[in-house]
Amino acid sequence: MNLYEKLAKELEKQIKNGAYQFGERLPSVRQLHRETSMSISTVLQTMYLLEAKGLVEARPKRGYFVSFSPNQNVQTPVVYRPTTKEGRGSIDDTIQQVYGKNEPHDSVTNFSIGVPSSTMLPIARLKKIVRQTMLDLTDACVHYEPIMGNPYLRRQVAQRTSLWENGLSPDDLITTNGCMNALALALMTITKKGDRIITESPVYFGTLQLAKSLGLEVVEMATHSEYGLDMEEVKKTLKKIDIAAVVVVSNFSNPLGYSMSAQSKRTLVKICTNHQVPLIEEDLYGDVFFGPERPVPCKSFDKAGIVLWCSSVSKTLAPGYRVGWIAAGKYMDEVLKTKLYHQVASPSLTHEVVARFMDKGRYDNHLRQLRVSLHHNLLRYLQIIQEYFPENTKTTFPNGGFLLWVELDPRIDTSQLYEPALSLGIKYAPGRMFTLRDQYTNCLRLSFGLDWNEQTANALTKLGLLLQHQLVNY
Amino acid sequence: MNLYEKLAKELEKQIKNGAYQFGERLPSVRQLHRETSMSISTVLQTMYLLEAKGLVEARPKRGYFVSFSPNQNVQTPVVYRPTTKEGRGSIDDTIQQVYGKNEPHDSVTNFSIGVPSSTMLPIARLKKIVRQTMLDLTDACVHYEPIMGNPYLRRQVAQRTSLWENGLSPDDLITTNGCMNALALALMTITKKGDRIITESPVYFGTLQLAKSLGLEVVEMATHSEYGLDMEEVKKTLKKIDIAAVVVVSNFSNPLGYSMSAQSKRTLVKICTNHQVPLIEEDLYGDVFFGPERPVPCKSFDKAGIVLWCSSVSKTLAPGYRVGWIAAGKYMDEVLKTKLYHQVASPSLTHEVVARFMDKGRYDNHLRQLRVSLHHNLLRYLQIIQEYFPENTKTTFPNGGFLLWVELDPRIDTSQLYEPALSLGIKYAPGRMFTLRDQYTNCLRLSFGLDWNEQTANALTKLGLLLQHQLVNY
Repeated sequence: MNLYEKLAKELEKQIKNGAYQFGERLPSVRQLHRETSMSISTVLQTMYLLEAKGLVEARPKRGYFVSFSPNQNVQTPVVYRPTTKEGRGSIDDTIQQVYGKNEPHDSVTNFSIGVPSSTMLPIARLKKIVRQTMLDLTDACVHYEPIMGNPYLRRQVAQRTSLWENGLSPDDLITTNGCMNALALALMTITKKGDRIITESPVYFGTLQLAKSLGLEVVEMATHSEYGLDMEEVKKTLKKIDIAAVVVVSNFSNPLGYSMSAQSKRTLVKICTNHQVPLIEEDLYGDVFFGPERPVPCKSFDKAGIVLWCSSVSKTLAPGYRVGWIAAGKYMDEVLKTKLYHQVASPSLTHEVVARFMDKGRYDNHLRQLRVSLHHNLLRYLQIIQEYFPENTKTTFPNGGFLLWVELDPRIDTSQLYEPALSLGIKYAPGRMFTLRDQYTNCLRLSFGLDWNEQTANALTKLGLLLQHQLVNY
Repeated sequence: MNLYEKLAKELEKQIKNGAYQFGERLPSVRQLHRETSMSISTVLQTMYLLEAKGLVEARPKRGYFVSFSPNQNVQTPVVYRPTTKEGRGSIDDTIQQVYGKNEPHDSVTNFSIGVPSSTMLPIARLKKIVRQTMLDLTDACVHYEPIMGNPYLRRQVAQRTSLWENGLSPDDLITTNGCMNALALALMTITKKGDRIITESPVYFGTLQLAKSLGLEVVEMATHSEYGLDMEEVKKTLKKIDIAAVVVVSNFSNPLGYSMSAQSKRTLVKICTNHQVPLIEEDLYGDVFFGPERPVPCKSFDKAGIVLWCSSVSKTLAPGYRVGWIAAGKYMDEVLKTKLYHQVASPSLTHEVVARFMDKGRYDNHLRQLRVSLHHNLLRYLQIIQEYFPENTKTTFPNGGFLLWVELDPRIDTSQLYEPALSLGIKYAPGRMFTLRDQYTNCLRLSFGLDWNEQTANALTKLGLLLQHQLVNY
């Protein structure tokens, strides 16, 4: 271990045990230089390391400040078990209420949106690449791509899997119009009307809507808020009933934010392989990790070809570009046909632009910045929730992504509270949207992909006070 | 009638009755000026008018040449009646053979492709608009579009319907990833597995593949090569059996190239309205008309909202951009949901670029040129077919689009002849691909969207000689 790594480790310990608290200033670089006899540049390296881990942040001309909170006072929820009671009414009405008229209003702080703020996206660099593409390519991308998708993009995505146990080749990949489209193509290919699929609970509402439109029955499974699907239950269910597919968001799930452990992923792949049940893995948040490295997906443990790995750049780079992909294992030929019949080809221009952005480390550079911004945001959110939300509030503590799940006092109904919150200029995603069962009415999902500023802080504070006020009235 | 219109009318008559034949030079502008005492500029206006009608073409420094042929010696096929006998084997193998490995080879003249040649597409102007879009928009189109699609594009498309009996508003339109995707969304929304749909015969193979993948039964209907679906048969069928949808390419159909008459369209809409059967109308070639004006679609006669009008710019502007749309009438809300669940949104950048291209008459200017090029090509094709194809060859005489259907001596099997033709550097689409029945094996589809040059002319001539040779061997 180098000198600067030793110092970083020590400071990290002090931050984590609360010796230095959230928002406090660390000793200055000059001071540490004097105290430790390390060179100024070595001390700076220490700070860069802590910064990269999201533990401190630099404020120009003022020094380094702690941006981590051990979050001791907010509880984490544990296992969510789906009730047997079916939910009243359709979730479509709530979804329509929250997302139906999505015109942006400056006066509304929108915690319900599922993409990071514009300021976190590399818009200027993307523009430059679009312009350069027009200069480089003779045909302005007007032609149909090959059916499998842009070869350059498939090469770039394959390269990003080179450290996996079972890495992918460009020929394992089919491009799609985003991750949701990858899931749709996968489900259309491997399921038929009346089939059952297993999902997490709570689960992303888009998956519920898609499944319903395809006539699929959703079997929601008990899910641990830190570790994900309960493997024993999955195993039992697969033994007991016919399941056409298991659908899981393996890394920084939506809405719970957990990431399955590598061991858990390996187990799930093994269970699915044994039962010959396809595992559809949505891995669209995996690149936004706050830990030391990107968590591997289930696909990396897949030897039998039963995992359909779906991903995209919609949560990290350019939602509107509709750039995603699927590695469909042994279902590849059939998925390819579904894509051809329904879409002919992917949109050429945006897929080329994203391939170019991924090349030469541009995407990785961008992800580094994005991760730091989002991690800082999370810590600030938790700070405010701890201070202003009711005492018995529980929140997840995601190690990546930008979605925070909040469990409130059971007396609170977040669907009923939606309009009062909106009238205060606050939008969130009510918990009821994330299940077909009669539960999670006391939960809500917050995006921490918003810009951190006074408006965001105020809105979060106001939401906390509204909840407190609500409880006092009971 | 102006002076120049009178002169144009006279010359048109002489061209059509063969006084001036294909490839012949018209009297020079100066000569006509002297003979008619009309000013030079008036004579030039005459020529522009004839040029716009595709009757003559200007050759720099040489004058105006006749580009129209009355095509008296090639017969037109009449009614195609589907046989009751099911086709042997799957059409997928033939489709795979023709389109599977679609790497372009300079040595192969590819008459099987379904898009016009690059040289007919306005690539330089598109590039300019892409670059300008990056300068104008602050967000580089990275964000999700509204679910219905780019509002600017929907406005542009709606404006193009303003002369219809029942024009569309932007709010009637949903953007899609091309016309095939519009058809897929429509079929997913209004049909379910096991349903029956009516199509033309012969019919575009992509429709057959999509229907099969959705578990739909295709009822191919008798189709006139000049007028389209036999209305009496459609009526009888709708009375007799349950039909979930009628699917029709109303203008310059693929593969037959006919355009339904306005009366026929009105009748079809009436029949479908009476039986409450949705009519899915693919109108993706309608902008490429060779007559005086764009034929209206069935949708323009739709008062009950039962027509789902699908279109795109894939056949006219930029296949790879995946820009299409659907006006789904009373099925609109449901189609919108299907789009949302499967795709979230359309690709933002290419949709914005096409909206801008449509604005300020750019698209219309481009279409004018494209129509002239394609019409000229058609006449040249017919000239060679007349000269070099076997005597009993029949061809359609499309009044738009770029697809020509050729019916050969019944002893010829165009699937069997595919490889011999390919070894001569010629690719075409065998007729068997356009039906699930056991027929059209003596037919083939040729694209006249290729550049007209020596290679194209030679390939077409060689194909004719190959067919002649084949018949001699029987």
